Amino acid sequence: RLGEMSEPEKKDNIPDEAAGTGKEKGIPNGGNPSKTKEVSDFDLAAIYVSDAQYNRNIHFDTSAQAVRLYLLYNHWLPKVLLYFFILVDLSLAIFEDPAVVPLPTWATMLVELLCLLVFTIRLVHYAKVIPRDKFWKDPKNICIIAILLTLIDMIIYGALKATDYYAVRWSRVLRPLLLVNVTEGRQLRRAFRSIRNALPEIFYVFLLFMFSVLIFSLMALKLLGKRGLKTTDGSPYFTDYLEIVFDLYVLVTTANSPDVMMPAYNSSFLFTLFFILYIFINTYIFMSAFLAVVFNNYKKYLKEEVRQLVRAKRHKMVRAFAVLQESREEGRGPVVTHANWNQVVRLVQPSISNPHRELLWNVCDDKNQGFIGKLAFVQLADLLNIEVITLKSRPHPLQSLCPAFYLSGPSRLLCRLVQHRGFVIVYDLIILVNAVFIGLDEENPMIANSEWVFLALYLFRNTLLGQQRQSVFLNTSSCPVVAGGYTSRQILDIVFILRVLRLIRVVDSIGRFRTIINTLIRIGPAILTFGQLILVIYYVFAMVGMELFKGKNNFNNIASSFILLVELTVVNQCSGFATVTHMSARIFFVLFHILVVIVIINIFVSFVLEAFYVEYSVDKGDLQTALERKIEELELAVAQEKLEDNLVNAMETSDNDLGTGQSPTANKPALMFKIASKRYRTVDAFLQRMFEADLDPEDFAENNDPEAQASGSFANPTFNSM
Amino acid sequence: RLGEMSEPEKKDNIPDEAAGTGKEKGIPNGGNPSKTKEVSDFDLAAIYVSDAQYNRNIHFDTSAQAVRLYLLYNHWLPKVLLYFFILVDLSLAIFEDPAVVPLPTWATMLVELLCLLVFTIRLVHYAKVIPRDKFWKDPKNICIIAILLTLIDMIIYGALKATDYYAVRWSRVLRPLLLVNVTEGRQLRRAFRSIRNALPEIFYVFLLFMFSVLIFSLMALKLLGKRGLKTTDGSPYFTDYLEIVFDLYVLVTTANSPDVMMPAYNSSFLFTLFFILYIFINTYIFMSAFLAVVFNNYKKYLKEEVRQLVRAKRHKMVRAFAVLQESREEGRGPVVTHANWNQVVRLVQPSISNPHRELLWNVCDDKNQGFIGKLAFVQLADLLNIEVITLKSRPHPLQSLCPAFYLSGPSRLLCRLVQHRGFVIVYDLIILVNAVFIGLDEENPMIANSEWVFLALYLFRNTLLGQQRQSVFLNTSSCPVVAGGYTSRQILDIVFILRVLRLIRVVDSIGRFRTIINTLIRIGPAILTFGQLILVIYYVFAMVGMELFKGKNNFNNIASSFILLVELTVVNQCSGFATVTHMSARIFFVLFHILVVIVIINIFVSFVLEAFYVEYSVDKGDLQTALERKIEELELAVAQEKLEDNLVNAMETSDNDLGTGQSPTANKPALMFKIASKRYRTVDAFLQRMFEADLDPEDFAENNDPEAQASGSFANPTFNSM
Repeated sequence: RLGEMSEPEKKDNIPDEAAGTGKEKGIPNGGNPSKTKEVSDFDLAAIYVSDAQYNRNIHFDTSAQAVRLYLLYNHWLPKVLLYFFILVDLSLAIFEDPAVVPLPTWATMLVELLCLLVFTIRLVHYAKVIPRDKFWKDPKNICIIAILLTLIDMIIYGALKATDYYAVRWSRVLRPLLLVNVTEGRQLRRAFRSIRNALPEIFYVFLLFMFSVLIFSLMALKLLGKRGLKTTDGSPYFTDYLEIVFDLYVLVTTANSPDVMMPAYNSSFLFTLFFILYIFINTYIFMSAFLAVVFNNYKKYLKEEVRQLVRAKRHKMVRAFAVLQESREEGRGPVVTHANWNQVVRLVQPSISNPHRELLWNVCDDKNQGFIGKLAFVQLADLLNIEVITLKSRPHPLQSLCPAFYLSGPSRLLCRLVQHRGFVIVYDLIILVNAVFIGLDEENPMIANSEWVFLALYLFRNTLLGQQRQSVFLNTSSCPVVAGGYTSRQILDIVFILRVLRLIRVVDSIGRFRTIINTLIRIGPAILTFGQLILVIYYVFAMVGMELFKGKNNFNNIASSFILLVELTVVNQCSGFATVTHMSARIFFVLFHILVVIVIINIFVSFVLEAFYVEYSVDKGDLQTALERKIEELELAVAQEKLEDNLVNAMETSDNDLGTGQSPTANKPALMFKIASKRYRTVDAFLQRMFEADLDPEDFAENNDPEAQASGSFANPTFNSM
Repeated sequence: RLGEMSEPEKKDNIPDEAAGTGKEKGIPNGGNPSKTKEVSDFDLAAIYVSDAQYNRNIHFDTSAQAVRLYLLYNHWLPKVLLYFFILVDLSLAIFEDPAVVPLPTWATMLVELLCLLVFTIRLVHYAKVIPRDKFWKDPKNICIIAILLTLIDMIIYGALKATDYYAVRWSRVLRPLLLVNVTEGRQLRRAFRSIRNALPEIFYVFLLFMFSVLIFSLMALKLLGKRGLKTTDGSPYFTDYLEIVFDLYVLVTTANSPDVMMPAYNSSFLFTLFFILYIFINTYIFMSAFLAVVFNNYKKYLKEEVRQLVRAKRHKMVRAFAVLQESREEGRGPVVTHANWNQVVRLVQPSISNPHRELLWNVCDDKNQGFIGKLAFVQLADLLNIEVITLKSRPHPLQSLCPAFYLSGPSRLLCRLVQHRGFVIVYDLIILVNAVFIGLDEENPMIANSEWVFLALYLFRNTLLGQQRQSVFLNTSSCPVVAGGYTSRQILDIVFILRVLRLIRVVDSIGRFRTIINTLIRIGPAILTFGQLILVIYYVFAMVGMELFKGKNNFNNIASSFILLVELTVVNQCSGFATVTHMSARIFFVLFHILVVIVIINIFVSFVLEAFYVEYSVDKGDLQTALERKIEELELAVAQEKLEDNLVNAMETSDNDLGTGQSPTANKPALMFKIASKRYRTVDAFLQRMFEADLDPEDFAENNDPEAQASGSFANPTFNSM
């Protein structure tokens, strides 16, 4: 057990941020552990824990000033400002030529300068936080180059425009780089890395695929070129080799499927076999091969990344422990006291409620010793990532107003009735009937008035349950119809959509569907990452496309460019676009297809495949189980049937009030906890769980070994002696 | 070790064929092992081994007569006849109304009767082979019902036609059932089983998916229905709920993608977001979810099936061992002698060469004892499935004709030159140049004549290597161009295709691509299974489609029906088909889409994914390694660089002659072996290998434990006492 702790620290492949910081900073209080902790110590420890919790890998300076700057750097306000200015910078394309809303060049240039200034300030801030030599080695500082290039381009462009020359704002393609490389774009950078890693394998399959396309094109040329066939518009059919290659490439996307083979089909029935064979090999086999290669690579590299992430996280926690530790008698390892622990947790997560914090302490300090060892401390970052719902036990309004009536026989019967499963089912049916009514013609007065009935039914239910906020969502969606009258089409549209969403509640209440829905929800954060990725690529392609094809085609402004690119992604509709038979349009189309359809969509599908696999096969994490056990031990658990962990509850209210009154006789504690086990706060936490089963067990060995934890007997972390 | 052997036998989930037969047959010679074996014993043992090798799960009677009938049943001639008549039966659709080639009704009916007779004979034969009570429980005998129903239908149809009533040959949809249920359609039945197993999960995802489509349709109705928008042909846009549902369903297939959203897009730019969101959720997320669910289920159930297959195989081998075994002195397990083993192997695989058989014996009898124990015997079925290439060491023709010249200095230099890597590369380049020439205009006399040069170069190479048959393929592909003159377009077409295929040789010689190509080749047999599956489903849909839509649409005959269905599969081109706005056409389209695109294509993709995963991650099987080690031990191995295990070698010649003369000094044995490690003889062997890594280790424990094998110390198989 003693050896296990220090083993991973000796490894060479520790992420260099983690290894680096350990070396250069003098660990405060490492030598004199009995000294009272200072405020800056807690700040430092809190930063380590917070970095571990959110998997930030910034190796900041540990001087008191740098720590304060780093706290500011991680504050939400500068982050939001940064994202705002990135958004402004990106949306400048709306106002630049070819513009959706034309603005004078000086206006957009001025705004862009402002954006660049903000980015520079952020970068300077970052440079102050981390050690100087680290800063210059950081690959993220490609941003500096992007900013400089943009400045140069702006000067050139301004000068050329002033002298009425033709000028191209080529630096606009660099803008998404900022989105990728600001330090918050971690998920996005990871996605790019996993694309880069998969590229060599994809490349080899792609070469084979192109070889197959070329061979088939050659066959098509020999089989069909000499027959003097004509296409529907009278031009010769399949006589030019490069034309055939392009046509067959597009056939892989099935965009020109029936048209391209029609002349051959009209000539002889048997040629269809050629095209069917082609589609089968190149569309089905090769496209599956692409998916397979991407899937394998994605899994392999992501697993390695997550492993490093876990290792880095533990390093940070060990460092935080070193800051907070106090030594005990000879021969026993250092510990962290309850008070210090409390202070750090409060700093890390100011919003955490006292009971929730105490619960976490109870999980860590399993033996009620008043202090915890290193192993127990290390798991704090993961514990903080487990979302715990705190439920305030609040009496039914009627119970406080008129307790005699509330506790009477009929009232109790009513309570039991309301608690019954049938009650839920009845209301689900009511929602379904309501949905049918929504679908019917609303001009009909009978149906329009029926909405009143449904509203009354929902209000009745809420009164019975004593819920006030829980169904705000449901009610607002009904109210405007009744109150506002048919004034504005737009408001009504939104209201209708909200009313329809009510139906999701019904589906989510069916257990069979919940696994699937939960998986889909889990994929949520990752979808945002992929959304950014797509945005970056669309932006670059839109910029290039607008320069190449503006005026000729659908690339008339940024909005229509984006819509065209969506079309290309979804339907591969190169028709109407590739009618610009110019070579550049074709190359543009093929490049876009390769990048988006072959690479990115396949990575997305891989992610979904893996997520479903995890949902179907992996059990709950050990730490979650421990937390749940502790909650049950302390008798703070919420009975499962009282609050179902379903989608709509999460949608409707941010902090759940338990509609008590359901069990007026039971003597429940005032606060109850529940783990929102299926939800993850961060993408990293989800990723970590995705690969948990495959991860090197030693990466977790320390965190989960209660025996070693209890005895508190491990050596000092090796980085102390480094 | 003792316990391990009998453990799997006790399990309850042993396939009942295997368990059943053990019970009912009195195991011959089990009690009196010293008796000389009779011919029928060897027949029986050979059948068991052969059944194990090809994973046939027929529990035949063990009486001498039934064994002889069973041998006939497995003979290739009746099998080929059966397949021929199935093909005839299926292709009757070409001649039946609506016909491609019309034939009178009595003619097709007569042929169908003949087919039914053949099927009945085959069934009777099957009934004679297996025990009576087993026959009636066999689910495959749904064939009998199919035959009876067909007969009834034919009588009704004939009677109605004779009295000039309208009649439908509804039993034609039953025809593919025969293809599925003849005993040889094992792979196909397995594919159907895996579809059936995946169905419940797919169903739940499908319900959610339909729910999402319905919700979006409702939103579309509310958002767009009241705006008075018109489609391009002037009809009202998005006003009818069911119309919207169908349109949005088709949008998932992206078949009507730009058209369906155009009116909304023209009305307001923002509605595009609605459609993009819809496509994103329903096309990308849900289609990925379908793939994920199918993939997980496929893996899970196939793994279970293969596990049972392996267990059944071992049971058969144990039974064969029981037939052949001879007891030794007290306390040591029974064995099989070399002579008996030889006789059985010869019966199982008459085509096996003596050296190959001796090699296998050497692998089994590792210690040269002259007999083998049960463990060593059991692995025979797997050994027979490993394809071993026997290479005859044949001297260069020149060496025998004129040895003095052949062994002279310049000749030796030439030999070394030819052996050099550069020589191969030069010839690869020549083939590439040839390919470019093929692509160029062949009317040009210079280019037409250049083919002579290439032919001469190929012949020169073959002379140098002393190969005669190896390049027959290459030469024939060039010859007709030269000899036959431009007589027939058809012949030329084929020749050109063959010449183009020559290029594959070049690609296959590059190591990077070989992994991918090997995986693609491995998938080959499975593709045949999926091809049959698709054929069955197309046939049923074509039959139904022709009855429903004949004359109205593209379902005019079986050929055009098939082409339409291919179109539906590939492009989801319901346009031109679904213009039959009749409800039945839509239901037909949706059903077809669900079955083929959602279920079958996803299963196919799952298979490809798994195959690539295996190729990238799983190593060679243990048994193959043992065989390879033995070959090397016996110094019979072929040096890797002498014969590369590539595609074209396999394509060009069935039994490889090693072009010696390359090393005239070396004293090589006259026969050499090489494992065609990347190829599998049967689909089952491939499947077994696919899941080998995941299989319960105890399924293999017996086969691979050399220690237990050497000591020969295990208990009699438990079924002896059952």
